[in-house]
Amino acid sequence: MYRTHNNGALRAEHINETVTLAGWVQKTRDKGFMIWVDLRDRYGITQLIFDEERTPKDVMDLAKTLGREFVIQVTGKVIERESKNPKMPTGDVELLVEQLEILNQAKTPPFTIEDATDGGEDLRMKYRYLDIRRNPVKEKLIFRHKVSIAVRNYLSDKGFIEVETPYLIKSTPEGARDFVVPSRMNEGQFYALPQSPQTFKQLLMVGGMDKYFQIVKCFRDEDLRADRQPEFTQIDCEMAFVEQEDILNVFEGLTKHLLKEVVGFEIENFPRMTYDEAMAKYGNDKPDIRFGMEFGELNAVAQHKEFKVFNDAELVVGIAVPGGASYTRKEIDKLIDWVKRPQVGALGMVYVKCNEDGSYKSSVDKFYDQEDLAKWAEATGAQPGDLICVLSGEAFKTRTQLSALRMELATQLGLRKSDEFAPLWVVDFPLLEWDEETERYHAMHHPFTSPKPGQMELLDTNPGDVKANAYDLVLNGNEIGGGSIRIHDKETQSKMFDYLGFTKEEAQAQFGFLMDAFQYGAPPHGGLAFGLDRLVAILGGQETIRDFIAFPKNNAGRDVMIDAPAKIDEEQLKELNLKITL
Amino acid sequence: MYRTHNNGALRAEHINETVTLAGWVQKTRDKGFMIWVDLRDRYGITQLIFDEERTPKDVMDLAKTLGREFVIQVTGKVIERESKNPKMPTGDVELLVEQLEILNQAKTPPFTIEDATDGGEDLRMKYRYLDIRRNPVKEKLIFRHKVSIAVRNYLSDKGFIEVETPYLIKSTPEGARDFVVPSRMNEGQFYALPQSPQTFKQLLMVGGMDKYFQIVKCFRDEDLRADRQPEFTQIDCEMAFVEQEDILNVFEGLTKHLLKEVVGFEIENFPRMTYDEAMAKYGNDKPDIRFGMEFGELNAVAQHKEFKVFNDAELVVGIAVPGGASYTRKEIDKLIDWVKRPQVGALGMVYVKCNEDGSYKSSVDKFYDQEDLAKWAEATGAQPGDLICVLSGEAFKTRTQLSALRMELATQLGLRKSDEFAPLWVVDFPLLEWDEETERYHAMHHPFTSPKPGQMELLDTNPGDVKANAYDLVLNGNEIGGGSIRIHDKETQSKMFDYLGFTKEEAQAQFGFLMDAFQYGAPPHGGLAFGLDRLVAILGGQETIRDFIAFPKNNAGRDVMIDAPAKIDEEQLKELNLKITL
Repeated sequence: MYRTHNNGALRAEHINETVTLAGWVQKTRDKGFMIWVDLRDRYGITQLIFDEERTPKDVMDLAKTLGREFVIQVTGKVIERESKNPKMPTGDVELLVEQLEILNQAKTPPFTIEDATDGGEDLRMKYRYLDIRRNPVKEKLIFRHKVSIAVRNYLSDKGFIEVETPYLIKSTPEGARDFVVPSRMNEGQFYALPQSPQTFKQLLMVGGMDKYFQIVKCFRDEDLRADRQPEFTQIDCEMAFVEQEDILNVFEGLTKHLLKEVVGFEIENFPRMTYDEAMAKYGNDKPDIRFGMEFGELNAVAQHKEFKVFNDAELVVGIAVPGGASYTRKEIDKLIDWVKRPQVGALGMVYVKCNEDGSYKSSVDKFYDQEDLAKWAEATGAQPGDLICVLSGEAFKTRTQLSALRMELATQLGLRKSDEFAPLWVVDFPLLEWDEETERYHAMHHPFTSPKPGQMELLDTNPGDVKANAYDLVLNGNEIGGGSIRIHDKETQSKMFDYLGFTKEEAQAQFGFLMDAFQYGAPPHGGLAFGLDRLVAILGGQETIRDFIAFPKNNAGRDVMIDAPAKIDEEQLKELNLKITL
Repeated sequence: MYRTHNNGALRAEHINETVTLAGWVQKTRDKGFMIWVDLRDRYGITQLIFDEERTPKDVMDLAKTLGREFVIQVTGKVIERESKNPKMPTGDVELLVEQLEILNQAKTPPFTIEDATDGGEDLRMKYRYLDIRRNPVKEKLIFRHKVSIAVRNYLSDKGFIEVETPYLIKSTPEGARDFVVPSRMNEGQFYALPQSPQTFKQLLMVGGMDKYFQIVKCFRDEDLRADRQPEFTQIDCEMAFVEQEDILNVFEGLTKHLLKEVVGFEIENFPRMTYDEAMAKYGNDKPDIRFGMEFGELNAVAQHKEFKVFNDAELVVGIAVPGGASYTRKEIDKLIDWVKRPQVGALGMVYVKCNEDGSYKSSVDKFYDQEDLAKWAEATGAQPGDLICVLSGEAFKTRTQLSALRMELATQLGLRKSDEFAPLWVVDFPLLEWDEETERYHAMHHPFTSPKPGQMELLDTNPGDVKANAYDLVLNGNEIGGGSIRIHDKETQSKMFDYLGFTKEEAQAQFGFLMDAFQYGAPPHGGLAFGLDRLVAILGGQETIRDFIAFPKNNAGRDVMIDAPAKIDEEQLKELNLKITL
């Protein structure tokens, strides 16, 4: 037994007790005749005092050799502090040390182990084990654990069974790129790591498991964008004998439970919005509704004059920026430059200042009179004092651009508050989306998603119009989960594969087992998956996921701490019948 | 909403309610004017009744088309059964069907969906989704979930934090063979799948996480023996500032909790036994102590006569078989043949019948008198009516052979009761074990295990004698967990790598990050890992793990349901810069 208490435990009630503590030296203060040491562990900090009048000389001498991050064990008496520290839970007491043992020395760490460290991202990742000692990282990992176990207990209490699905499965070229694993025992063949347990959870429904969940690692060999990881964690769920409404209710319940239990935030029922409505109102299928600034479509009130830019546009659409009428010319020019950046891609921006006196001043006064501009204000909900920003062009692109501007302005205006939570369901997603690169329709969710009843026929005539029983849970402008009601009969599934360009042979080779399964009595079923990394980050009030992952990889997919991936032995390659062709 | 109740829910109190059920047709009984259907789901079976006098004709006609495993939805009134079935929870009632919808048809399944199925292992694995519908498999998966969540809540309540460690790590040739994952973004390099999160959990201790656990998949590319899986699940744990005793106490607590909560079995403190004692008493480092039959060493009382076989032997050792004196000559010959099988490898067996009258009759009466044999009986604890079986030869081999015989006899005698649980700790394992193949010592546990204090020096002179702070939890003759106190300073770890034959360069390349970490203030730490698959199987009273895994692989590492592993596209290989050399 290395300790009787941890470093967050001692209080006034322990005064005069003899205790043993162990931990890391956070800092030392040496006054010669007296030395104070802050001793740290996961649970807190306790102040140690070495006093030349009360501490044995050899202990005093040893204490003088202590450096930052030394690991020590001390025994002594708990005494009342002369100057108490009300900010520390242990701040009423200190430990008068009688015995000291250095359990391990420490080199000076490459960055300070403080809440605000001097270490840059790269250094912190290389020495992640030191970074984890810092409160902000440690607390995030503990927070993640709390969320995970709350999810598990909630779902388990609702009758869900956590079933472990396999990690060594089969590669399917559909969707993102798989990581593959060469098989030594099956020569020339490969396993793949799952991008999700999709087909297995559907098979569990065919198998009568009724309610399944799993918190599970998934893998995607994608070119990494910022804040994407090649391995990520999903809360994966599936239910049999359900309609969309049943699924939304269960997982709305789960999300409410997490908001309440983990972050203390209570909320009524989540709003629901169709995909079309979300796109029209926010230009985005994952709208942040912590704030307003809804889109106002202006075609009807902006295409009757001789302004060619608007007249040629498929869509003219604006938002009202609260208080924006006071922006200077320079500030507005900055906004215009912002929307013209290649990342956003607008060609320009029209604006209208809504003056406090009820008059309007716009960048297109040459074309529009006060009456026109009043209609724009009405459509965008602009109040006196606001600024209306208007973009125009091809509908989808223009909405996307205005959505980017809306988010940027909200960030600038401090409307995206990290302690506010605004979840909503976006429903009725399109079944298919057009892929510019391959010039064909792809499954927007995945090929197992069921079209809405009676819409299968539209596939041949208006494929882009077909809606699916697919839904996303959106929280603070992030998609934290998505799912669908699945196809559960072989004929429909087979038609869907045809439609998505699979040959019969490909469909059979890759998903034959699933279509076979559907012939043996598959129940109606559906489910969803939450991205745990993102969910935890957002519940924790953060935008980036990296610090909620114990050992994340960098943007090149490398673990810089262990230096992986790495070369392997020739012998290993030979056993796998592989040769590197570089 | 597909149902108002599940098929295990209806009771007498529901009589006269109109309810909707959904599920699978377990069986139908058609009397022409009346049809009974057993409707099944995860929760149970409810009897449906279609009666030509009370059920609409179209529903009656449709009911006649129902086949086994059809998925249906029915609405009707709950009525009292004429002949109640007290064996079924729903046996007081049946549902008089008014509406019937066939949600999905089913082909006749390739084996019967019954507790005792007619399906062989191969067929059941190919159609695992149908196998899972069977109670024995379904219940095992639900049982596994219960164990997992009980483990998580127990450890979480004790302050352990579940931290997810990465799956894409670095290959280390030490130990078993790794599965590797080619990296596309880092050309010519490979990740490896973890054989265990060993180094990461140690780094979490260096990082101050203090108490870590994880239920996690691990991977080993081994030639599969029966009942081994290439991917398996571990309950992985680590604690800082602990001695062996602290760890044993925590995980003894966990195991007691599981025995009590999950299988209703209460037990006092677990016995502890050194490795040397376990080998001497049971010839086995994972003894089954649900029964006695302890070894009696006979060297002192069997090597004083002219029986050369014994006199030449390093060890003469016997066990007493309860009631074995009544074995016929034929039965005893069968035992002798059994120990002479190549799998056991004994050259022969000497036996002594302990007659009820106190006299002895042995196969070596030529050499030993009654007084000698009485001493053998004393050493083996044999009572009148028992049979003493004696093996001799090289000590380790002979113990292993006698251990095999002991287990075989216990199985024959019904002493290995599946509802009895006899856990124990085996402690003080050797640090090293001799490997015949490479003719050198290997780490018995792993290279991170700490030798017992003061024994490091023995490494150079008597390496086989060095004991480690290593321990196994044994349950009913199975090792269900093992662990150790770890090395936590660079110098010792470096020496250990030297000793195990790593060059400085290899040690640095593979484990440099860990030795670096030890220089920045590593606390004393240790831990253990439980094999979840095996633990669940044993708690479930079974010897084989396969049915406690939802989608197991066969002995060739194949998933015969999805047909994995499989060939991958040339395109995929090209992106990975790989060529198959077959």
